[in-house]
Amino acid sequence: MHGIAVIGAGRIGRIHAANAKAHPNLELKYVVDPVAAAANDLAAATGAQVAELDDVLADESIAAAVVASSTDTHLDFSVRAIEAGKAVFCEKPLDLDLGKAKSAQSLLGDAPFLLGFNRRFDPNFRKLHERIRSGEMGALETLHIISHDPAPPPLAYVKVSGGMFKDMTIHDFDMARWLLGEEPVEVYAAAAAIVDPAIGEAGDVDTAKTVLRTQSGRICVISNSRRSGYGYDQRIEAFCSKGLIRAGNVLSSTVESWGEEGARSDALQNFFLDRYAEAYRAEMAHLVDVLDGEAKPLVGYGDGIQALRIAESAMQSHQTAKMVRVDL
Amino acid sequence: MHGIAVIGAGRIGRIHAANAKAHPNLELKYVVDPVAAAANDLAAATGAQVAELDDVLADESIAAAVVASSTDTHLDFSVRAIEAGKAVFCEKPLDLDLGKAKSAQSLLGDAPFLLGFNRRFDPNFRKLHERIRSGEMGALETLHIISHDPAPPPLAYVKVSGGMFKDMTIHDFDMARWLLGEEPVEVYAAAAAIVDPAIGEAGDVDTAKTVLRTQSGRICVISNSRRSGYGYDQRIEAFCSKGLIRAGNVLSSTVESWGEEGARSDALQNFFLDRYAEAYRAEMAHLVDVLDGEAKPLVGYGDGIQALRIAESAMQSHQTAKMVRVDL
Amino acid sequence: MHGIAVIGAGRIGRIHAANAKAHPNLELKYVVDPVAAAANDLAAATGAQVAELDDVLADESIAAAVVASSTDTHLDFSVRAIEAGKAVFCEKPLDLDLGKAKSAQSLLGDAPFLLGFNRRFDPNFRKLHERIRSGEMGALETLHIISHDPAPPPLAYVKVSGGMFKDMTIHDFDMARWLLGEEPVEVYAAAAAIVDPAIGEAGDVDTAKTVLRTQSGRICVISNSRRSGYGYDQRIEAFCSKGLIRAGNVLSSTVESWGEEGARSDALQNFFLDRYAEAYRAEMAHLVDVLDGEAKPLVGYGDGIQALRIAESAMQSHQTAKMVRVDL
Amino acid sequence: MHGIAVIGAGRIGRIHAANAKAHPNLELKYVVDPVAAAANDLAAATGAQVAELDDVLADESIAAAVVASSTDTHLDFSVRAIEAGKAVFCEKPLDLDLGKAKSAQSLLGDAPFLLGFNRRFDPNFRKLHERIRSGEMGALETLHIISHDPAPPPLAYVKVSGGMFKDMTIHDFDMARWLLGEEPVEVYAAAAAIVDPAIGEAGDVDTAKTVLRTQSGRICVISNSRRSGYGYDQRIEAFCSKGLIRAGNVLSSTVESWGEEGARSDALQNFFLDRYAEAYRAEMAHLVDVLDGEAKPLVGYGDGIQALRIAESAMQSHQTAKMVRVDL
Repeated sequence: MHGIAVIGAGRIGRIHAANAKAHPNLELKYVVDPVAAAANDLAAATGAQVAELDDVLADESIAAAVVASSTDTHLDFSVRAIEAGKAVFCEKPLDLDLGKAKSAQSLLGDAPFLLGFNRRFDPNFRKLHERIRSGEMGALETLHIISHDPAPPPLAYVKVSGGMFKDMTIHDFDMARWLLGEEPVEVYAAAAAIVDPAIGEAGDVDTAKTVLRTQSGRICVISNSRRSGYGYDQRIEAFCSKGLIRAGNVLSSTVESWGEEGARSDALQNFFLDRYAEAYRAEMAHLVDVLDGEAKPLVGYGDGIQALRIAESAMQSHQTAKMVRVDL
Repeated sequence: MHGIAVIGAGRIGRIHAANAKAHPNLELKYVVDPVAAAANDLAAATGAQVAELDDVLADESIAAAVVASSTDTHLDFSVRAIEAGKAVFCEKPLDLDLGKAKSAQSLLGDAPFLLGFNRRFDPNFRKLHERIRSGEMGALETLHIISHDPAPPPLAYVKVSGGMFKDMTIHDFDMARWLLGEEPVEVYAAAAAIVDPAIGEAGDVDTAKTVLRTQSGRICVISNSRRSGYGYDQRIEAFCSKGLIRAGNVLSSTVESWGEEGARSDALQNFFLDRYAEAYRAEMAHLVDVLDGEAKPLVGYGDGIQALRIAESAMQSHQTAKMVRVDL
Repeated sequence: MHGIAVIGAGRIGRIHAANAKAHPNLELKYVVDPVAAAANDLAAATGAQVAELDDVLADESIAAAVVASSTDTHLDFSVRAIEAGKAVFCEKPLDLDLGKAKSAQSLLGDAPFLLGFNRRFDPNFRKLHERIRSGEMGALETLHIISHDPAPPPLAYVKVSGGMFKDMTIHDFDMARWLLGEEPVEVYAAAAAIVDPAIGEAGDVDTAKTVLRTQSGRICVISNSRRSGYGYDQRIEAFCSKGLIRAGNVLSSTVESWGEEGARSDALQNFFLDRYAEAYRAEMAHLVDVLDGEAKPLVGYGDGIQALRIAESAMQSHQTAKMVRVDL
Repeated sequence: MHGIAVIGAGRIGRIHAANAKAHPNLELKYVVDPVAAAANDLAAATGAQVAELDDVLADESIAAAVVASSTDTHLDFSVRAIEAGKAVFCEKPLDLDLGKAKSAQSLLGDAPFLLGFNRRFDPNFRKLHERIRSGEMGALETLHIISHDPAPPPLAYVKVSGGMFKDMTIHDFDMARWLLGEEPVEVYAAAAAIVDPAIGEAGDVDTAKTVLRTQSGRICVISNSRRSGYGYDQRIEAFCSKGLIRAGNVLSSTVESWGEEGARSDALQNFFLDRYAEAYRAEMAHLVDVLDGEAKPLVGYGDGIQALRIAESAMQSHQTAKMVRVDL
């Protein structure tokens, strides 16, 4: 049994708290949030107590802190928790500023730090990763990642998001690195505000096709859109020397209707809370393995830094219409 | 090059004539039909000549006759062609009267007689048959055949059709015999006029679930409906000791639309002219193999008799609500 | 918050206990099991206490008892819990003896009694039910249920199971009743021991095709096998007047490999613990709705009785090779 | 009835000859090929005569010439046929030299010239085109084309092919132009010899991800590989403002095997002769419509020029690692 605290009682904090409550080896003790109502609600639903961060960090029975607060507090809370001797499970991104994230890296030492690139824990992508690694289809040569959101976020969010590459594509950069098994060294991004001109006026893009090339010559294409019109499109195809391995979309149910116009499946799962529900559970189970000393964090601080680096290169490629080399 | 004549210029005669024209080893010489306009049109479209049956049968350059005339003439024309030394490719059913069909059998001798159970030539079902026979999934144990028409035929047709079991299910009885590799000895049929009460008033049924059991104990379920609402539903599942082998429906195209409500495939192929276009081509190619002495007819006269026998037993089971043993 | 106790710490009791622990509105207080080790393990994993049944029933803070003990104790424990004023969530089947189950019915009064026909809570089948009821495809006419287990249970289990119809098909009888929306009045079952002769020697069957007909004339076919060779095959097709609505199998993941021999999907989910994990969660959430007075039990005592009745008729049809009328 | 001649009795000439023979409104009169054996074989299989090109062009009963000879003769034979007053159906590409192809354009006048970009006649892609144009999913925004061959051609072929972009991707450039409905103005190509280093040593590539951007801002990604390991991968996805429309691969049959490891489909159709058999038939039927004055050629000379232009830009982008603007 490990004592655990969740910092941040927003949408993602509530997910992690529910998973912590359901896990047989975790005891969710505290919920921290400056918004009292949010903290109280989450505490009531999980049997945890509302507490201040300092008190949580001072409690020796707490083994790990889940940092699910606003992005600008990720680095600060993580460092404080680690200084207090806790393991940290921090939501992505580390920060919107690559420089700041790099500076903080030295403060972490060897403490267990798990970064919340949740897609690595999705059972479908784990199976995909496993099959690629098994070599059953030969060597991986090229990779296609499709990652389209159902609908754009509010413009207010877009403005503080750090831009589509750091906010959305960053997941795909991490996925690409994990599946390719090596670092991208070249980036070319063709991007535009096709979905909503207001996003373009805010200085951001909502559609991109990004091409990565690795040191050994593998090529990856990432397709992003802030709006699909048909749900959360999350597909990956790995073209290998002997064949293709792919992970498809997840539907709301297996029900189909066959009528005059053809067979209609059920809708795609609409967004990440549904699509990655199992991934969030697995991520929490992985944290327990880390706390038990049975695993090293599958995603660490360095992964966060590297994804930010590629995002900045992609942005630069989009702005210059040239291929950009990624600083390693 | 084999000379060939098509007797009957209706819907199915036109299919066979076009396939004969396209085949590199056949020369379509004659078209026979009492309706002059039909005969002339088909001759014009294929470069064949219109002729009388007697003249066709007297022409020594004719190797085979395709009997695609009305059902009540199948036996008579087939026997006459065989007596004239021609190979015969006769459309199903042999006749609606089992007694008449049995009587004519002795007149055929060893002449090549190919019966038009076209579904045995469908590439999907051939592949299914091949995979079952290969034993890759172990021994066949039970079989499900779904065979639903898109929409009921005109009531006038229903009245002269011989009833659903002889007109429609007869294809499935033949398919069951072919795939099971042995004769059904028991039949139970639960049938009704669910689609259209007028069909019931005409003494027929439009919906049936028929259970067959073979000597060795294999069980087969056939599902029939005169109306699907979604096209021509032609599926088969073979449950074997190590797994399942199945043949699915054929869609009009591979195009899909993904929208808010899910993914919509294109429509099922609507009816047999589309769904079995390839089967009809393969059937004609098989006739050429028979004429070349490279194959025995895959479906013969005896297969037509046996399918009629099972159809009569199914009808009897439906009428008595009891399981009926098939006379072998 | 409702206090709850789980009686029976076996495989299915552990499922219900984990779901109770994870639910925000339940407090799992007690675990009861005559096997001390089982009770202790489950208590440790859930934070519950081990207790005796009498003490549990005497505790006023307990609102509901989950009866997940051995089949022969279902009726007794349920009646005792209800007499103690608790709501009951009882695993299927009620009992193997229809007479005994009927006698106990009068003892229940109006107390909330939820019977564990878990498949009604599967999100896929719920969606199927909803779509059939919506009438979007017209009136339901015929129904196909495929329900094949991956592999036969141990022979020792078979011998005390009450026979395949009461042990396995009973789920399908319930599903048929629920989807058809009316009672079957005729049953015909073609069954055999095809998978394992030893099952036949033990007086049971392992393969069946059962045909049901309802008062209004709907026809349903249920296919059962104790062994599939490819996982847990749980599919339903509802043929309606305007089209087909179907629920397919659930795969272990969305990953596919495309090689020279075609595309290979991931394996089917192997058995009920995986396939119906979500259904068990939804069943527990439904119990909470019942406790909150927001729902009547979706499956009640009478449903258990009726499924047993059909099972007995199917057995009789199998033994007599005749269609049997179900006693209503 | 239109008289027609096929020039070139190789693989693709034989396809066109068989389709001409089978068409009810065409009379295949002549086959031309410098290799006498090839010409004789094809004439025997189709009932046509072997002839010299001059005699064919002098025969007034010939309405159209199918130019299916070697690439370097396409322009010359096409121009001669047009000068003789024939309609021309010419295989792709026009020529490997953009300059030569541009020079010849003025010699064609208004004569019907159909260029053999066969994929536009594939029923799946036609349906895709139709659905995109219908606007049912809103405006087309981005496009993904996957076009992978099963296995690389012989190195000798690679050396004279004009390079992958002109030989293989040229089909995809045409498809992109047709589906996008406007001209690409920017090209970026990330290409390499990943499949076989010998292809790289010969100065060519075998793998490419090419990004096109149109005047109005639509973005298209084309994925090419000379080797798939799993057959002929020909898929297209059109991302529109309200949803996705896609065309999938075509399988050899609908047969699936379900075993312990999952469901295995039949193999993909292996290569273009199978995959586009129906397209070749439809292309010939379109020629008849053109000859009947009922249609303008769907693909003309200008389409051949434009596809060559994009191919040259893609090659240049690959060589310079920069985005290249397409000369319009």
